[in-house]
Amino acid sequence: MKITDIEAIAFRYRSKIVQDEEGHAHPGPEHDATETLTKVSTDAGVEGYCFGGSQATVEVARPVLVGQDPFDRESIWQRLRQYQRMGKARTALADRYLGVIDQALWDLAGRATGLPVYKLLGGYRDKVLAYASTMCGDDLPDGLDTPESYADFAQSCKEMGYTAFKLHTWMSPLGPDPKHDVAACRAVRERVGPDTRLMLDCHHDYSREDALYIGRALEELDYYWFEEPMNEHSISSYVWLTEQLSIPVMGPETAEGKMYTRAEWILRGASDISRYDVWHGGITPMMKTIHLCESFGVRLEVHGGGPGNLQVLGAMGIPGEYYELGLLHPFIDHYARTPWLTEPIDPLLPGGYVRIPQRPGLGMEIDWGYIERNRIR
Amino acid sequence: MKITDIEAIAFRYRSKIVQDEEGHAHPGPEHDATETLTKVSTDAGVEGYCFGGSQATVEVARPVLVGQDPFDRESIWQRLRQYQRMGKARTALADRYLGVIDQALWDLAGRATGLPVYKLLGGYRDKVLAYASTMCGDDLPDGLDTPESYADFAQSCKEMGYTAFKLHTWMSPLGPDPKHDVAACRAVRERVGPDTRLMLDCHHDYSREDALYIGRALEELDYYWFEEPMNEHSISSYVWLTEQLSIPVMGPETAEGKMYTRAEWILRGASDISRYDVWHGGITPMMKTIHLCESFGVRLEVHGGGPGNLQVLGAMGIPGEYYELGLLHPFIDHYARTPWLTEPIDPLLPGGYVRIPQRPGLGMEIDWGYIERNRIR
Repeated sequence: MKITDIEAIAFRYRSKIVQDEEGHAHPGPEHDATETLTKVSTDAGVEGYCFGGSQATVEVARPVLVGQDPFDRESIWQRLRQYQRMGKARTALADRYLGVIDQALWDLAGRATGLPVYKLLGGYRDKVLAYASTMCGDDLPDGLDTPESYADFAQSCKEMGYTAFKLHTWMSPLGPDPKHDVAACRAVRERVGPDTRLMLDCHHDYSREDALYIGRALEELDYYWFEEPMNEHSISSYVWLTEQLSIPVMGPETAEGKMYTRAEWILRGASDISRYDVWHGGITPMMKTIHLCESFGVRLEVHGGGPGNLQVLGAMGIPGEYYELGLLHPFIDHYARTPWLTEPIDPLLPGGYVRIPQRPGLGMEIDWGYIERNRIR
Repeated sequence: MKITDIEAIAFRYRSKIVQDEEGHAHPGPEHDATETLTKVSTDAGVEGYCFGGSQATVEVARPVLVGQDPFDRESIWQRLRQYQRMGKARTALADRYLGVIDQALWDLAGRATGLPVYKLLGGYRDKVLAYASTMCGDDLPDGLDTPESYADFAQSCKEMGYTAFKLHTWMSPLGPDPKHDVAACRAVRERVGPDTRLMLDCHHDYSREDALYIGRALEELDYYWFEEPMNEHSISSYVWLTEQLSIPVMGPETAEGKMYTRAEWILRGASDISRYDVWHGGITPMMKTIHLCESFGVRLEVHGGGPGNLQVLGAMGIPGEYYELGLLHPFIDHYARTPWLTEPIDPLLPGGYVRIPQRPGLGMEIDWGYIERNRIR
């Protein structure tokens, strides 16, 4: 089987999500938005898909992919990784785009063999616990505007069946404010009681001292982990923080460098729980990172949602526990956000679980009629 | 698909290989020997096979495997790994047996999907350089009895097309003797000239001082690596040796502990090149170890031969370079050693390469007539 083409299909949809100046998502007025579907075709008629990507990406990737066996994922991935260093590939093949190509190839392998990706990798579990992961704080009345609003939302998530809840608190220009963060964390703990697992993912550029202050408060409030409170390029700051806190510190999340960076964090003892996702390079480096962490007995919690992350979670019992479901907000219907799929990828099951998608590949069933009706190019 | 049974099929064959008191292989008089084929069956009629295993192994593994989806390799492997700790499973599921079960499951996955295992994993290359790996030294005239005999054999391997040659030198009771080892290494280098890659895998329980003496000599002789010269349970000895030598020190090979142990060796800087194989736990922990090493930019050279190791080499460009072809001896026809296969798994190609087997699964075609004719149970 040979790859014959890679394309980026752009289409319009209606969105109720807007981004603030730092790129964080919030509810907003409904507006036209664009989504991209990356599609890899073969001479056998089998195709692979992943949402995301760009026209520039497929143009840079096409000469590398066309003519290759789509099952040669490792050689394709290593080649694209080497290309990332320079010129237009530095942006066109940035990790977020590399991750889309790699996921599309895994999707193709699953569709070609009739297996969901996690069974190709070697299945460990068919479902995984999810946590409700909020959007960042806002100033929308009864949204996520006050500690009390977070408590209200945590309670309603608990009533929906979630057993775990993670706050993203206020970013610029509404924050950051360590005391406000702690107040929200306290209000949530007081409302949901001692049995719900709680986590905090706050502003990602606090000082060492602010991070320590928040961490100590989370220990008192029996939080489960403390995520990326400082700039991840300062590994020494994370070593400093992790040494002093008993609550598990989690990272790196956004730091560049794939499994190489996670290896250095482990070597330095810069966090208690490592973090990575398929959107920063693909399923291929994600599995490398999972295996790295397992070799050191270090936990790894998968960042973010989507079918690729779910498939990876299905193939790992160790070292990851939770699926991040979101980002959620009281005003947003999470399951209405992907009208290009015939059904949502991560419906919440009783007990607070999400099922690993069972369809071949990544497990998405694409609504081609929707995409064709809204196609831009 | 569900697993319905796991069996160990034992059969006789004629062998010209005998083992010395430490377990090292040498040529000897032809005699009856026993081989075992482990077979995993499913309700879909698909089967998976791996040579090796035992009756005790399948009896302990059967309750874990039967009823499971054979694609749930990760959960099956983790369960069996946990069972290794105690009682009869400590021997019946020792790494060498765990590795056989895991390989049989990968073989089954490949046969079920029509793909060789390396394409399931994600292919990187279709062929790999091989090195001729000798049996240990002996006292057989014109065998591997003198430095000159090693030189003769290295020359004939070079004429066969090998571009790399590894000596296993004299073990008890004919060795160990550091000066004898160095003399053999020198004779080989002088005979084959500067362009053949040479490696040494000598006695595995030398003192620090003897190992340093041999290592210094190998540096002068431009050897490519220096393998397991000391007891691998003394990690500090390897740190000591690796710090002083410029020739890459390789290990651990026989040390227990799978990827966990390789992680600690990396952390300690106990070797320059890591080492592992599918026969000590399976393809599953082998890939974890490969990914661990890649994350640290550490080379890993695969130990030993066989179809599982070849498949893994096909899925890794980084960090492993060579396939170990052997063990070879002037008196032994390597390719006559597996009469239970319709053809050998690792024929040498021009340029000194071996092709990654292309048949589904591990890539073996089993001669069922041979096995039935010689079956014991």
